[in-house]
Amino acid sequence: MRAITIPEFGDEQVLTLADVPDPTPGPGDVLIDVAAAGVNRADLLQRKGFYDPPAGASPLPGLEVSGTVAAVGADVTDWRPGDRVCALLTGGGYAQQVVVPAGQVLPVPEGVDLVDAAGLPEVVCTVWSNVFDTARLRAGDVLLIHGGSSGIGTMAIQLAVAAGATVAVTAGTAAKLDACRDLGATILINYREEDFVTELSRLTDGHGADVILDVIGAKYLDRNVSALADGGRLVVIGLQGGATAELNLGKLMATRGSVIGTTLRSRTDADKARVVAGVREQAWPLIEAGTVRPIIFERVPFAEAPRAHRILADSHHVGKVLLVP
Amino acid sequence: MRAITIPEFGDEQVLTLADVPDPTPGPGDVLIDVAAAGVNRADLLQRKGFYDPPAGASPLPGLEVSGTVAAVGADVTDWRPGDRVCALLTGGGYAQQVVVPAGQVLPVPEGVDLVDAAGLPEVVCTVWSNVFDTARLRAGDVLLIHGGSSGIGTMAIQLAVAAGATVAVTAGTAAKLDACRDLGATILINYREEDFVTELSRLTDGHGADVILDVIGAKYLDRNVSALADGGRLVVIGLQGGATAELNLGKLMATRGSVIGTTLRSRTDADKARVVAGVREQAWPLIEAGTVRPIIFERVPFAEAPRAHRILADSHHVGKVLLVP
Repeated sequence: MRAITIPEFGDEQVLTLADVPDPTPGPGDVLIDVAAAGVNRADLLQRKGFYDPPAGASPLPGLEVSGTVAAVGADVTDWRPGDRVCALLTGGGYAQQVVVPAGQVLPVPEGVDLVDAAGLPEVVCTVWSNVFDTARLRAGDVLLIHGGSSGIGTMAIQLAVAAGATVAVTAGTAAKLDACRDLGATILINYREEDFVTELSRLTDGHGADVILDVIGAKYLDRNVSALADGGRLVVIGLQGGATAELNLGKLMATRGSVIGTTLRSRTDADKARVVAGVREQAWPLIEAGTVRPIIFERVPFAEAPRAHRILADSHHVGKVLLVP
Repeated sequence: MRAITIPEFGDEQVLTLADVPDPTPGPGDVLIDVAAAGVNRADLLQRKGFYDPPAGASPLPGLEVSGTVAAVGADVTDWRPGDRVCALLTGGGYAQQVVVPAGQVLPVPEGVDLVDAAGLPEVVCTVWSNVFDTARLRAGDVLLIHGGSSGIGTMAIQLAVAAGATVAVTAGTAAKLDACRDLGATILINYREEDFVTELSRLTDGHGADVILDVIGAKYLDRNVSALADGGRLVVIGLQGGATAELNLGKLMATRGSVIGTTLRSRTDADKARVVAGVREQAWPLIEAGTVRPIIFERVPFAEAPRAHRILADSHHVGKVLLVP
């Protein structure tokens, strides 16, 4: 089959369309004919050599796909050839076919285009597992999302608004903030012009954020802790601003706050299956009802994979970028 | 009434037995004739001027007492004069009488001496709220307790063992580690001689700690994060080793770990009442069954309050120090 490979680490141009062996499903696996693969920031890190796939994972990039089931392993009873599905992967999505444990497969939600569905698994599982499962966002809470216009951000806004939370976002341009507002965010902070701690405090009457979903890491750590409401939970899922920073534990204690670091990719198959089951039960109905939808910025052909990565690196997009075989 | 006051901040000698106005209960309060007051490390900080009482709290030190109900406010139906009780306070315990919201009062557990019961509220509420309510310790988990022979440590060991956890402790002398072993701790680490990260990993086959109860703060932050098991929760409740330290968020993400800072004293009355209710339901039966008991190091008369503080500062004790009017 054809796949986008990383023959050596480097800039976008190292991404190479090549022939690789077809994958074969094990007894508990599903083989999917890929309709599209979602592009994630983790793929860019992997391409640069900063994010090794976990042991046992495909060396190919790609953490989510949509497509049609081509075959299933002997132990798989939930899926059959021809099913329209999408899936959360540990790798290997940038290919014509991919193999994935059956527990990480989801049906394409009713009313969602097969290709667009490739933009759902990673962001919905990330938002659900972190914001709802780990940080226990509740109706009436304030959620602060850094990078509100990203793939994760646009999904987090929609799911949090649907859950009855007040959503605050940071973004770097007025156009991005407009997109966030259209999705339901009501507190819009341009981080280039305003301090998010001050603004969030002002616009929440001093309450702050019950939950913060953060992809920046070190650069924002101290300010994020300052922005927490009493009992607030800071969930760090990315390190775009570095990994190591000073933490003032006294400040954290004063608000009885939590700093939580998580990744989805490193979880066990069993834990991923638990997340996928939670998503199917709690988020999928909102998508099928049309309350929440995938926000797709562009579909890029496999042959133009370098351009797809450049879109994420340049960061002018809103929502998800997909690669289409 | 007579009370131990802090006329000026300073060393133990500033503690002064003096006449102060009697407290009067509000409609939701209970007035207690104090049989004994527990001494906590926070009292030492308050004496030094490093820990101001929260707004509205008594300026007198003392976060827990036992005694007999002298009177109740008009709205109080759960308690009546003559009841033998102990209570979690926001301050004011170093006195012949103290007033406390009814929701923070507990009955003296059956089989426990009235004076000894003064050593229960703060430690049981601290351990229950942090280790069980916040950090969700479960049967089979590994709990690491820094300062296993302290008042909090000796209670945490007993409650965690009763819950089916494996308990690891650090302490600075063989005698203290012996006391921890007698209470049920099975992993005993002398922090003066061994690195707790290495030892804990070795003695748990690389698993680490599912929950860490920490009073050290900054000095241990990086090593505590290194000691966490996958999904582990570090709960920081004291800053004996400083407040500010570098946090490696990448390391935290790799184990999907949490750093949680908490204090009991700053919680609202409603939240304290919730904690007290949880303690009464889940911990009190273990004490009444004799499975868990207060560990009392010494009863010190009010007139010798400076010596009581010096015992905690010198840190050769095991368990709780009580002040008796």
